[in-house]
Amino acid sequence: MLKLWHCADARSFRALWALEEMGLPYELMLLPFPPRYRAPDYLSVNPLGTIPFFTDGEAAMTESAGIVHYLVTKHGPTPLAVDCQDPDYAAWLNFLHQSDATLTFPQTITFRYRVLEPPEKRQPKVAEDYAKWFLARTLWVDRALADGREWLCAGRFTAADIAVGYAFLLAGHLGLIADVAPGIRAWWDRCQARPAFARAKLAQG
Amino acid sequence: MLKLWHCADARSFRALWALEEMGLPYELMLLPFPPRYRAPDYLSVNPLGTIPFFTDGEAAMTESAGIVHYLVTKHGPTPLAVDCQDPDYAAWLNFLHQSDATLTFPQTITFRYRVLEPPEKRQPKVAEDYAKWFLARTLWVDRALADGREWLCAGRFTAADIAVGYAFLLAGHLGLIADVAPGIRAWWDRCQARPAFARAKLAQG
Repeated sequence: MLKLWHCADARSFRALWALEEMGLPYELMLLPFPPRYRAPDYLSVNPLGTIPFFTDGEAAMTESAGIVHYLVTKHGPTPLAVDCQDPDYAAWLNFLHQSDATLTFPQTITFRYRVLEPPEKRQPKVAEDYAKWFLARTLWVDRALADGREWLCAGRFTAADIAVGYAFLLAGHLGLIADVAPGIRAWWDRCQARPAFARAKLAQG
Repeated sequence: MLKLWHCADARSFRALWALEEMGLPYELMLLPFPPRYRAPDYLSVNPLGTIPFFTDGEAAMTESAGIVHYLVTKHGPTPLAVDCQDPDYAAWLNFLHQSDATLTFPQTITFRYRVLEPPEKRQPKVAEDYAKWFLARTLWVDRALADGREWLCAGRFTAADIAVGYAFLLAGHLGLIADVAPGIRAWWDRCQARPAFARAKLAQG
């Protein structure tokens, strides 16, 4: 049984969305944010209290893009996976890794020092530094969508769109989406129009 | 031809080390750090000026852990790759994704606000916040190495050890290695003792 520990709209949304795209059965453990303070029992599952946590029998994972990667390669075959013989395999892998390391982590710094920390511990300059850092790196997404391309790679919607898409869900929450290129915003609208995206939103309540 | 743009001991070291472990022919483009200021011509290759940049014919990549992932799955077969039928496939994928997103990015924040920025722009509290953040997350590495296990997963040295290992190379540069668990330090010593690690160090001059 696939089991996902999740907070609404946290990075674990990547895994939830992939589960819905693939139509796999799963158990969803919904937690309040941040779980380490608001659901201390969760520390017996994940001692760091971070989200996501995911299990598939004995296998356990903590990285949201890694879980998406796992689902589409382990529980396929699915068109969400791009095979290593495909000319876009390198682009697909790069987007999967880029989605969290390069496009999400900088935003979590902005979130922390602009929103999460109590006012006396906020760091407006650092929050601004990493908002800019994120926006600069969206260049790779913008380029992939040039020349009227509908999806990031391989000529179809794949796990790369799910993993990278989440970075723009977060950008929406942080008020950064208006600063993103129009081509990216149009692609993100296409992502959000997918029935599986709506089902994932519904599943998280 | 495989071509890697690299700065000594930057994240691109992951790709260089993997190339040496696999014995693949490659062309190394060595740049001074940070290249966006010290090698402005590089902006015509990578307009963001970030390292790494990697090409394999028409394929181009920018994510260090993604490049390692690509090399071992595209240019194998190699024991550095863990197959999706292996019971440790989930752990392997998780480490590949965790290596940069969770174990390296926080250290780049410490590096920026403790070392790179001019003194008036340094942020000692932020540098300290993310040094602690990194050290807390090394728990996953420590657990993987419990019970005398020599390598992170699959019972052998894999791409996961390369990708995660780099985070500890960086921790050494930042003076954080002494705060890491003894089991991790012993594993990192084993990583550094590999002939391919020495060849990668030699290749970067």
